[in-house]
Formats: sequence, C-alpha cells, structure tokens
Amino acid sequence: MERFTAAADLHTWSVGQKQAGMKIGLVPTMGYLHEGHLSLIREARRHCDKVIVSIFVNPTQFAPNEDYDAYPHKEAEDIALCEAEGAAAVFLPTPEEMYPTGASTWVEEVTLAKGYCGAQRPIHFRGVCTVVAKLFNIAAPDVAVFGQKDFQQVAVIRRMVRDLNFPVRIIRAPIIRDEDGLAKSSRNTYLSPDARKSALCLSRALAAAGEAVANGERNAAVIESAIRETTTAEGWLPDYVNVVDSETLMPLETICPGASAILLACRKNGLRLIDNILL
Amino acid sequence: MERFTAAADLHTWSVGQKQAGMKIGLVPTMGYLHEGHLSLIREARRHCDKVIVSIFVNPTQFAPNEDYDAYPHKEAEDIALCEAEGAAAVFLPTPEEMYPTGASTWVEEVTLAKGYCGAQRPIHFRGVCTVVAKLFNIAAPDVAVFGQKDFQQVAVIRRMVRDLNFPVRIIRAPIIRDEDGLAKSSRNTYLSPDARKSALCLSRALAAAGEAVANGERNAAVIESAIRETTTAEGWLPDYVNVVDSETLMPLETICPGASAILLACRKNGLRLIDNILL
Repeated sequence: MERFTAAADLHTWSVGQKQAGMKIGLVPTMGYLHEGHLSLIREARRHCDKVIVSIFVNPTQFAPNEDYDAYPHKEAEDIALCEAEGAAAVFLPTPEEMYPTGASTWVEEVTLAKGYCGAQRPIHFRGVCTVVAKLFNIAAPDVAVFGQKDFQQVAVIRRMVRDLNFPVRIIRAPIIRDEDGLAKSSRNTYLSPDARKSALCLSRALAAAGEAVANGERNAAVIESAIRETTTAEGWLPDYVNVVDSETLMPLETICPGASAILLACRKNGLRLIDNILL
Repeated sequence: MERFTAAADLHTWSVGQKQAGMKIGLVPTMGYLHEGHLSLIREARRHCDKVIVSIFVNPTQFAPNEDYDAYPHKEAEDIALCEAEGAAAVFLPTPEEMYPTGASTWVEEVTLAKGYCGAQRPIHFRGVCTVVAKLFNIAAPDVAVFGQKDFQQVAVIRRMVRDLNFPVRIIRAPIIRDEDGLAKSSRNTYLSPDARKSALCLSRALAAAGEAVANGERNAAVIESAIRETTTAEGWLPDYVNVVDSETLMPLETICPGASAILLACRKNGLRLIDNILL
C-alpha cells in the first residue's frame, strides 16, 4: 500500500493509475477508523480497481468552540486497517499541505447546507465542501464513497458535484451500527457507558418510525412527535427531527416512501449525536 | 472543429483526447472575439495539442445593474474565428446547461477578489471563479490561458487553482492593443468615437509610468499621482489606480521591478475601462 503526504505525489500516482486503465475510488475520512469506514472502503473496492483512503482531520470544518483539538487519533492503527481492507493508497497530509499560507478560496453550497447540522454549525459544510473539492482535484477519483450516517453531508456533496461538474460519482453507503443499534461514529468514544446506553433511544426511535411508515403512516408531524417523545424521555433533546426529501432535504408534511428520510440530532450533557433513516 | 453545447459531451471528448495522449488547452471567453482572444488561442496552441474555446456569457458574474443583457454577441463569426485559429473544439453551453434549476454552489476567493474591480463589483469574481471551476471540471484542461487585460481575474484564478488543487496550469497572455494603444476589449464597442479617442489616456498614462520606472522611479505614490492626473485631464476619473504586488495584489509603496504591476480603472459618462501594466 502506498502512503502519500504530498498532494502532488498522490496526484501523479493516481493519474498514472488511470492512464494504466485503473478505476480510482476515494474514501475521505478524518481517521479514527471504525467498522463504518471499513465498509466504505469495501464499497469503494466493489466499484474500483484502486482505492485511496484520505485521513485528514480538516480544521476548516470545525468552529473554534468545537472539538478539533480533541478529535481522536490513531494513525498507525488506521493505516494498518486500510492495508488490511485492501486500500491501494492512504493520503495523510498535514494541515499546512492542505491549507498553505494565505489560502483564501472556499467552496460553499448555500441551500442544502443551511438547515439541520448547518444551522448549528454555520461554517461546517463550507469546510467540508472545500476539502472535498481539494481531495477530488488531488486524487482524481472516478468514484467517492461517503457514509449515510452524515446524511446532510452526502446531500451537500452530491449537490456540489452536480453544480460544479466534478467528474466523480458519489456513492452513499449504508449506516453501520453496533449490535445494539447505535450508529458507529468516531465521536462515540466521547460517550460514558451510561450516556452510550441512553443514546440507543435515537436508533430505537428511528427504527420505530421506519416501522410505522412501513405500516402505512404518512403524516410527518406524527412521526416527528413520536421520535421527539422517545429521545426526550431519555434526556436526549432534539436539535432537530425532520422528515425530509432525501435529495433536496426540504421538510415534508407527507412522507413519500422511497424519496424521504428522517434526520435527527440530539444533545445531552454537552454531547451531540446524529442519526437518520431512509424511508 | 467540434462543437459542443452539452457539458457531458465535451467532457467525454476531452477525456478521450487525453487518453489518446493529447495535451488539452482551454481558452474561456464570453464571445464577441477580438484579436486579444485570438492571441490566447494561439498561446494555448503553442502549449497544447487540442485547444477548446468556451463561449459563454456567464450570468453569475454580472450584477443586476450591469450589462449582461446588453453584452455583445456574434456567435457565428466567433465560431468561424475559432476554426480559423485552429481550435479543436468550441463549447457553447446555454445558461440552463451551466446553471441547472436550484444551482446552489459557489466558489469564492475572498482576499485577492476584494479590492479593485471586486470593490465595485462584489459578486463578480465569485461568478468568475464558479464558472471557471465548472469549465475546468467539464473540459479537463492541462493548461488554461487568460488575458493579462483582466489582471485581477488572472490573479484570483491562479489563487483558486492553488487553493483548490486544480491540476491546471494557468498562463497569463500579454495584453493586445489597437495600434493607438487602446487595450482590446469586447466592451470597446460601447465607446463613441470621441470617448474612444479620450480613452487613449489610460494606456498613455501606463506607458509613461512604465518608462518612469525604467528610468529609476520607485515611489508608487508619485507614479499613481501622475497617472491620476493624466486620465483626469481627459475626463476619465480613476475608480482606482494602484501599484501592486503582481501575485498577491497587495498595494506597494515601493515599486519592485519584476514583481509589480499597476492596475487602473477609470470611468467617464457611465462607461468604465480597465488597463494595467507589468513593471
């Protein structure tokens, strides 16, 4: 497995692979890899000959009050995991490599990025779009795989790809959950055992909502109230809970199975978790 | 010569050319081609095997009070000129092809784009960066050629290319002037014979400044005052006249030959002209 820290070196390698007829997949990550990330690598391998995993905690998507400095790291283990999953290359740039002095260009999606997590984190998706645009130009992938866990992120990136004509196919890979239902997240490491246990209310509420829709419920307000009740009872207060169009993220009054999703973010004791379900 | 109106068709063609070993050049234009544009095509041909000329009056770089609707057109003649100059392809998209319904992603450079023309035209360079990013993704050029006439534009695009890692080399081609010194511009068609004659004060003032610098003058304020006096005497009032660092566009107090430029924009009777000189 190749290891790159310089953008130019990765670009040269990737272009060479493409000239040799290889199809390139990219899995952008912030490291601290878990089974969810590994499923993205496997998904990328199903579609591509050579998979690049980027490991970069992107400073521009964190606000000053967020957990950039505390974000968990385990680089050596991450690299071993990528190799074990058959990645062809890992990209481990420094912040200085990605953001040279005087960097002054942003990519910003201004519609899908505004609500939900974007309402709480106004600069977050601008940082995400900018770093993903950079990674696309550096790695020149044919396909990039993102996790459904960050549902709004995938929708924003798909819109960016469409709007800016990036020649990259975006694949949204399903959420990977622990056996008890908790959606895998690098930030789950912040949860105490008690908090972790009560946090199961998020996935439980969404699963119940999915069942209700399967049984014919179409009223978004009814579904949203039930979820709010379930999580609030466990002390997890929703930042937002919305039935939305799964492409535009516009809130829906009436659920349209096949084209709707429920987005959920909850807080408890300064911790924040997100989860979602495609209907 | 190929003609494309669909972004996907141009992309397929360009990628095919690259796979066949061709080096691709892109010359982005808004049409109404003059000798300045043709010099860009020739410059691109010196560096590339296949040159694509895009002809697109980009709505997002015009403010509502600007001349988008009045911008001059001569498409059939432009196409003939591209063919005569040996362009391999022209790209003539509709506004709907470039900006599908709900387009919501912008590329914005926030430092170099702020002063000079950007101060008068706050959304202009956001529109330029966005459309150029799109054209880069669509045409996948190795090289793109822009005219020095729009000095700030080239600096902003170079910064965008660096910041977002676009794998495109930007060439800045020299200003082409009429025999009397007026910098070629599609908008010169707006000039009455009298306005055109008085407008020569811009190039005359810059040429005199260039001579003064060649003769040892290093004081930016002295040079700027002389230019301001020359153009004001002809009724062309400077929006700005600045000696700047030719890469960062930061204003300079002391001229540094080889790394400085003078940027000039003047208005008279509602018309606005720009010109510049590398020192």
